[in-house]
Formats: sequence, C-alpha cells, structure tokens
Amino acid sequence: MSILLRNISFLDIENEEIINNIDIYIEGNKISKIGKSLDVDATEIYNGENKLVTPGFINAHTHLGMSYFRNYADDLNLMDWLNNEIWPIEAKLNAEDIYYSSLLSIIENIKSGVSTFCDMYYEMDRVADACIETGIRGVITRGLTDIDGKGEEKLEEIDELYKNYNNKSNGRVKVYPAPHAIYTCSEDFLKEITRRTNELYDGILHVHLSETLTEVNDCKKEHGMTPIEYVESIGMLDSHVIAAHCTHITDREIEIVKDKEFYPVYNPSSNLKLASGFTPVQKLLDNGITVAIGTDGDSSNNNQDILEEMHIGGIVNKAVEMDEKAVKAIEILKMATVNGAKAMGFENLGLIKEGYLADLTIFNLDSNSFTPRNNLISALVYSANSDDVSCTIVDGKFIMKDRQILSLDESKVRKIVNDRWEDIKKR
Amino acid sequence: MSILLRNISFLDIENEEIINNIDIYIEGNKISKIGKSLDVDATEIYNGENKLVTPGFINAHTHLGMSYFRNYADDLNLMDWLNNEIWPIEAKLNAEDIYYSSLLSIIENIKSGVSTFCDMYYEMDRVADACIETGIRGVITRGLTDIDGKGEEKLEEIDELYKNYNNKSNGRVKVYPAPHAIYTCSEDFLKEITRRTNELYDGILHVHLSETLTEVNDCKKEHGMTPIEYVESIGMLDSHVIAAHCTHITDREIEIVKDKEFYPVYNPSSNLKLASGFTPVQKLLDNGITVAIGTDGDSSNNNQDILEEMHIGGIVNKAVEMDEKAVKAIEILKMATVNGAKAMGFENLGLIKEGYLADLTIFNLDSNSFTPRNNLISALVYSANSDDVSCTIVDGKFIMKDRQILSLDESKVRKIVNDRWEDIKKR
Repeated sequence: MSILLRNISFLDIENEEIINNIDIYIEGNKISKIGKSLDVDATEIYNGENKLVTPGFINAHTHLGMSYFRNYADDLNLMDWLNNEIWPIEAKLNAEDIYYSSLLSIIENIKSGVSTFCDMYYEMDRVADACIETGIRGVITRGLTDIDGKGEEKLEEIDELYKNYNNKSNGRVKVYPAPHAIYTCSEDFLKEITRRTNELYDGILHVHLSETLTEVNDCKKEHGMTPIEYVESIGMLDSHVIAAHCTHITDREIEIVKDKEFYPVYNPSSNLKLASGFTPVQKLLDNGITVAIGTDGDSSNNNQDILEEMHIGGIVNKAVEMDEKAVKAIEILKMATVNGAKAMGFENLGLIKEGYLADLTIFNLDSNSFTPRNNLISALVYSANSDDVSCTIVDGKFIMKDRQILSLDESKVRKIVNDRWEDIKKR
Repeated sequence: MSILLRNISFLDIENEEIINNIDIYIEGNKISKIGKSLDVDATEIYNGENKLVTPGFINAHTHLGMSYFRNYADDLNLMDWLNNEIWPIEAKLNAEDIYYSSLLSIIENIKSGVSTFCDMYYEMDRVADACIETGIRGVITRGLTDIDGKGEEKLEEIDELYKNYNNKSNGRVKVYPAPHAIYTCSEDFLKEITRRTNELYDGILHVHLSETLTEVNDCKKEHGMTPIEYVESIGMLDSHVIAAHCTHITDREIEIVKDKEFYPVYNPSSNLKLASGFTPVQKLLDNGITVAIGTDGDSSNNNQDILEEMHIGGIVNKAVEMDEKAVKAIEILKMATVNGAKAMGFENLGLIKEGYLADLTIFNLDSNSFTPRNNLISALVYSANSDDVSCTIVDGKFIMKDRQILSLDESKVRKIVNDRWEDIKKR
C-alpha cells in the first residue's frame, strides 16, 4: 500500500516554513520520500492542488469517555461541579457507555485534524478498541486513584491492559499508567505506580499536575511543598512525565523540570472555563521546556476541537504577557505536532520528514479562512476551523477523506450516545 | 411571502430557556406568531426536527474590507504592525477591492450565523451594496479621521452615503458616522461629528474607545483625562455611542456611562491577539451596562466567526475573575443578540418574539457538538462551531440554506479576492 500526495503544500515545522508544490510519497506506514515531481509507483495518487498538509495533530490530554457530561452542568463552582454533578453520574457509566463516548470523541478529534490522542480514563480496553477500529493513533492511559480503597485492583487491571494492548495494531496503541492526581492518590500509591512505570512498563506516565490553586495550597499544607516539588521528592520525575495543565508551575518548579523528561500539556479552554488560571506558556518555552497541547475532556472544554484549542492558546498568552509577539503561531504548531509527539514518547512522529510515521492532516486551502493566501502558518492557528480539514491520514492510511470518517457512520454513533445518556440518567 | 418553522426548538433569551416543539410563523419580514401546532397557510414550510433556532447573531464591530490583511503580518508589535505593514498597503485599496473583501467577510459572517453586522471602514457605498446584494442586515459606519487633513471631504461623503443608503432595502441598511478614535480625530472634528450625528443623522455614532494602554496614557498626557472622560467632556456621550473595545474602561468611567446610551462592544479575539488586554466584562454587566460582542476585522482576529468569538469571550472572563460562574453562557448569548440589537439602535430585533424582525439562525442539532442533548444554552457558547449553523434568515428571507449562501458563488468570491490581492501588492 502506498500513497502519493502530488503537488501539495506542506508545513515544514523544523524550518518554520511552508513548502509549495511538493510530492510526498507514503509507503506502508512511513513517509518514504519528499521531493519535486517524484517518479514513483503509488497505489493511490492524491491531487494536492489547493491543499496544505501538516503533521497530524496530537491531542496530548483528553478524557474521551466524558462526552456525556458536555454541557451537563456548566458555569458552576469547580468543587460543586465535581462533587454534586460529575462524580455521582460518572459512577454510573459502564464499559459500553465509555466505548461509545470514546467513538464520538474520536470522531470529533479526527474531524479537527487530530491523528493521535492521549486519553486518561477507565475501562480503557474499550477505549483501545475504539482507537483500533477508527484507525487513529492512541495513547491509552488508565486513570489510577486509591482514595476509594481500590488501588490494588486498578494496578492489576493495568497489567492486563498493557499485556493485551500495548503496541497493538502496528504500534498504533501505547499503554501507560496514569496516576490521576496528587489529591486522589496516596503517597505510597504514587510511589508504587512510579516503580511499576519504570520496571514493568515503558517508563512513561501521565498525571494531572498543578491544575488549580486549591491543589497547590492543599499540597503546601499537607507536604510543605508545591505539587511538582512534591512529586520530585517521591521520585516520580525520574520517569518520563506527561503532565497535564501545570497551570500554576512556579519558577522554582521550572528549574526542577527543565532538564528532565517532563512534558507539560497546555489545556487553554479547560483552564479558562474552569477558572483554573493562565498557564505561563511563554516562560515554559523560554526555559526550553517541550510544551504539548490538549483539549481536555468534553466536560470542561466543551468540545474536542484541537484547532480551536490552538487558536485560544495562541492568542490568550499575548494578552497575559501584554506582548503581541508572545507564543507565536509556529510555537503553537510545534506544541500540536512535534512537541506532542515527544511528550507521547514517539521518536519518529510529528514532522513531515522522510522515515517518519505517515500521520498527516490535509487542509482545503480553497476556503474562506485561507483567503487570501497570506502566511499559512498564521492562518492555521488564527483563522482555520475544523471545517477546513479535509483528510486525516494515520499510519499511512486515510481515516477521514473529504470530511467523511471512513470507519463508521457518525450519525449512528450520535444516536447511540444520545440513547445511552437517557438510560444512564435513569440508572 | 411567509415561512413556517414547524416543530422547532428555540432559544427564548428573555426567559433564559430553550422551548421545544414550537411553530414559528414568519410573515413578510416579521415574526408574526409563535405557538404549538399553528394553523396557518405558509408559502414555505421548514421542518424543524433536530433544529434549534436562535435570534440571528449581531456582529457589533468589524471591518469587512480588511480580509486582505488576514495573516498578512502577525505576531508583531501593534505600532510596527499598523505603521509598517497595515497602513501602507491599506492606502492602496480601491472601492472595488473593498467591495469584494466585504463580500468575503459577509459570507464568513453569514456562515457562522450572523444576521447583522456593524462595519467601520471607507468606500462604504460599496459595502452597503455588498450588504444589499447578500441579504444580510448592515450597519454601515463610515470611519472618519482628520489627521490626514481630509476631514471635511469625509463629512461630505457621509452626507451623500446617508442620503443614498440609510434605511434602504426595507430598512436593512443603517448609516451612522464613525469617528475612528480619539487619536486619529482632532477635538474640533469630534465635536463636529457629534453635532452632525444629533442634528443631521439618527443620533447614533460608532467609535473605537479605550482599546489600548497607549491610547489611555496618551489621552491622559494630552487632555489630563482618560478616553471616556475626554469624550464626555466634549459632549460625545449625549449621543447613542457604539463603543468598540473599552478594554481599559475604569470604575470612574463606568459610573459616567452606566446611565447613558453607551454600548461597549467586546472583541475578545482581537483584544487578546493584539495584547490590548482583558475587557472587564463581568464588571460592565454587574453595572447594568448593555455589552455587545464583535469579531473586529480579519487583520486582527483573523476570521469572522462570531461563534468562536462567543466561545472565547465566554471562557476567558472566568479565568480573569478566577470565578467559574463569571459571564455565564446566557450572558454571552444576550451580548450576541438582544444587546447587540440595542447597541445598533434597533427596537424590535434580537429576540424571537411576535412582532420582532425575522432575523434568525438555525442550528443542526444532529451534530457532534450537540451530542448528547444537554443544556443547549451552554452548547451554543461552549461547543458549537460554524459548521453546525445550517440556515440564516434575515428580514424574513433565507440568505443561507443548508450552508449554501443563496446570493452568490463563494468560490468565485474567493478567487476574485485572491487575484485582487496579488494585484494590490504590486501597485
């Protein structure tokens, strides 16, 4: 199987430029050749006229199973929202509910150009199934807590998950553990997860960290340290850490993490909507930290549109810094591609480069957002919307073409999610 | 001509709720009846199943003619951007360039559900033509400056514009004067515009006010007052004022304007992207001020998507106030509908109510953004994107149906704008 993208424009992230009229040849699941007028035999030739191809976007932090809670309870105080609205109803979800919610969320991700998601939730075997069936690349991280006294069970479950799904489907599925947060896991539990991460799994874990001021203040009270100081003190930062939020990361904490395998994931919509605060993205970048970007779940976003996330993240930091030049468009594009890939633990992902995995997003340039044809790097971040995404390729295969998801019928998934939700509320 | 929207859900702004399974009967350009199973003879029956109708959105501050500058020069310091990039090339635009840019911007507006725009630019007779031809409602405000020594000419031009276009097309076009800003108009000029506004026109004007700290500081230096204190001191606030931005409005200024016909227009994307600052929206609302919302021009946004604007405006204030309950979704919807209508000087616009103008936006609820079907008020602000907008009705007529603009061929307009831009750059 091979695909030739003929005469297309592409986003060259490393050189921070757009290259026009190029051929990109995909063999198997890799980008095999990039050049002018390539003389190759391809199974499929895709006409790249008026199209722009970027590395597939990486949604580095989400909760696919939470679609049900989209617009369920908004404009509420965070703790009221969690305690009285989200957690009681979330406890009623079963594996099939989560499977269908994940399908819906994956559809939304693909339609905004996402080729890799990083999910933290439970019933993750069914999330992995949804990933495999839809053709997207998935980082499947099992959310772990022991405040309910069931930590041990969950650790057994992740062993099983890792055995059954890690590196499945040509390596499209990765399985990592995900200690939920420092306020839902005991210190011993965090230490045990870290030990297993390094000894049993791939040395990579995913955690919510320094999201809210409440978390920071409680941590100081309990441990006499800020959250990142605390996780360092218990050895967690010896692993590769995908750290969702880091909204309140301090200068001292930046010094701690800057030379480690520590990858903050910026979630602008969620941080703004939940009034968590403004993540100091420019400062993180200035310190050479590899920042990724994610949508967070539908319950706090309330959608899975990575392009909207990029736009919001791209502009809000300028006002925070009172500097129009802060967090430039190209930095946002790096966050959504090559930085995300590094955060996920992939070596050869997130760039359009020979030898790299063929995960690609194709934009239709004959659209209002791209008219007139000025700086396309700016246009991707500040003007484009998901309607401009025409195709998504993952692992060398089209998974969306002309905005049609190839693996399933979207409207059927919506109907099932609506029906299940009516049922969940009655349980 | 009459239209019956049969069995539709609608957003009842006054009661802050969604009403399901209702019939809305439109006769001529007005909403004539709202009720269950209406027994009426309609020229056209529209099946409202799985559809949600809202008042048409009002984009209360934009510059339609600036599409050319979208992504032309981003991530630059504001004054560099204006002086070295925007103003030199803007000076080369002719009336036909502005006409085609306005067509493109109007298309984008309609496709995100906008039924009324308020534009400030020049060559406004051609903008009015674009408005009339596409069927949208337009508030045509001629930007006026006298720093170029040509103030008098422009005043003559607006007399002509008012005579030829005000209340044209069944009242769909309104013409108001628009002193550009306090830093581009002399005090005498501002006074003369105000006098004319009240004596010759309709008592309504449109102005950029308190957008940046530079403007505030320069005004203090020159006049010993803040911008809104200054315009009050010269009598401008005796008119009805559409005041774009008000980013840096002070408590003292809020006291000045709260009982006047003063309508701030919030432009979140532009304020963030240009690092202008965070408009204190919650404080304005708390003081009973009628706040409208707008996209600003493509040069600073960089699109004309009112839904994205609503989303960004809806969430950013929560983080600014560190309060999840700040600027609730319904407040954003009011800003984009009934508040916008009041700001524009319309009495019977911005609500779905018998006797009101039939300007309506119809959303397709069988979409990912609205799945599952939870709080639709939240969904409109936090989840929806322009792809969910199915139809736009203005003055009792469909101007977009199933996402097709009825008056023109979108792709032709894009081609003309691209071609003209290539030519403009060579002039």
